Amino acid sequence: MDGEKEIPDFYIMLVEPKYGGNVGAIARAMANFEFKHLYLVNPCNLDDECYARSKHASYILDDAKVFSSFEEAIQDVDYLVATSSIESQNDKRHLRNSVLLEELTDKIYDVDGKIGLVFGREDYGLLNEELSKCDVMLRIPTSKLYLSMNLSHAVSLVLYTLYVKQSFEPQEKRNIGKVEKEKLYMFFSNLLDIIDHPKHKKEKTEVMFRRIMGRAILSKW
Amino acid sequence: MDGEKEIPDFYIMLVEPKYGGNVGAIARAMANFEFKHLYLVNPCNLDDECYARSKHASYILDDAKVFSSFEEAIQDVDYLVATSSIESQNDKRHLRNSVLLEELTDKIYDVDGKIGLVFGREDYGLLNEELSKCDVMLRIPTSKLYLSMNLSHAVSLVLYTLYVKQSFEPQEKRNIGKVEKEKLYMFFSNLLDIIDHPKHKKEKTEVMFRRIMGRAILSKW
Repeated sequence: MDGEKEIPDFYIMLVEPKYGGNVGAIARAMANFEFKHLYLVNPCNLDDECYARSKHASYILDDAKVFSSFEEAIQDVDYLVATSSIESQNDKRHLRNSVLLEELTDKIYDVDGKIGLVFGREDYGLLNEELSKCDVMLRIPTSKLYLSMNLSHAVSLVLYTLYVKQSFEPQEKRNIGKVEKEKLYMFFSNLLDIIDHPKHKKEKTEVMFRRIMGRAILSKW
Repeated sequence: MDGEKEIPDFYIMLVEPKYGGNVGAIARAMANFEFKHLYLVNPCNLDDECYARSKHASYILDDAKVFSSFEEAIQDVDYLVATSSIESQNDKRHLRNSVLLEELTDKIYDVDGKIGLVFGREDYGLLNEELSKCDVMLRIPTSKLYLSMNLSHAVSLVLYTLYVKQSFEPQEKRNIGKVEKEKLYMFFSNLLDIIDHPKHKKEKTEVMFRRIMGRAILSKW
C-alpha cells in the first residue's frame, strides 16, 4: 500500500432494463455524480425518450457498451456489487446476504480494480444465477411497507452516496485484485474436495463462501 | 425539552412541477421512505403517466393538497427548506447561502413543528421571492460540470437521507415553533427602525437575518 489515492473505476451495469426513460435518467444521474462507464445487458431501445431524459448526458449513452449476456458483461470486472430490494427467503438466503448502502460506501474504496454496480430489471430484479456471481449484495434501506424503488432512483441514491463519500472523505487504496480473489476461491474449492464435502452441496457452499468473502472485504481482508 | 422522541412532520412541497411523470415518481419515493404529505403549487395535470409512475403510492397523489399560490401553501408550515442547484451569484448571494444535504439532516430534527421541503420547477427552480421566504437553502452536492438534477431524483435523495438518519439514529426534539421565530424576526425588524437603518436596504437586511437564523437553527439556537 503506497498511500496514494486513486479512485476506483465504477461500472454501472444495467441488466435488461425495459424503459428507455429509466436508462436516460440514469445517464443523467451518472453525469451529476461523475460516473462515466455504462454497461447494458440486453437493453431496451435507447429511444427518443431515453435521450430526452438524459439531457446533457447523452455522451454517456453514446459511449455505453452493450452486451448480449451477463457473463460477457462481467468478464473484465473485478468486483461485483448487486442491488436487490427483494427480502431474504428460506434456502436462498445465502444469495441474499446483504450490506446496507452506508456500510458499502464506507469500505468499497478498499477494493482495487474495476467495480461493477449491478442493477436488475424493473420488474423482477436480478436472477439467482446472476446474484450468485456477485461478490456482495447491496440493500438500500426502504420502508417495509413499500420496498420496491424506481430503478433510476435506486441507481441515483447509490451514485450520490459514493460521490459524497469520495468528495468529502479522502480514500486510500489497497491491492486486492481479481486474480488473488479467484485464487482464494479456487483454494476453497480444492479444500472442499479434500475434506470430501458432498458433491451435491458443493456449488451452494462455494456461493456461500464467495458471499462471505464479498462481505469480508467490507471489513478487513 | 422532555427528551421524548417525536418525528417532525415533513411536507413535500412542489412548486409548479411541469411533468406528471415526475410528480408520480416523487409520490413513489415518498412511500419508499415513509413520507405522506404532498403539497402542490399550481401543478401540471396529474395524468395517467403520473399515476402509472406512482405505482403503489397513488394514495399519496389522491391525498395531495393543491394550492394556487406559494404563500397559501406555506401558511401553516413552520420551517421551510428550499432546494436549489443554482450557484451563488453576486448580490443575490444572501438568498443563496446554503447548507449541504448531510449538514441539514444532522440538525433538522431539532426543529419542532411542520417542516416544508420546497422543490422548484424542473427548468428554472425557485424564484428569488420564493427563496426569500424560506429559512434555509439546501444544496445537494453534484458535479460542477453538471449541477442540474432530475427533480424526482433530487427529492428522492433528500427523502432517503432523512429516512436513513431517522431510522438509524435516535433523535431528540426541541421546541422552537413558528410563533417564536416570527417574534424574533419582528424584533429584528423593529430594531432596524430604531437604529435608523436605511429604508431601501431594510427588506434585504431582513432576508439576510432570516437566512442567518435559518442556518443558526442547524447549529445551536
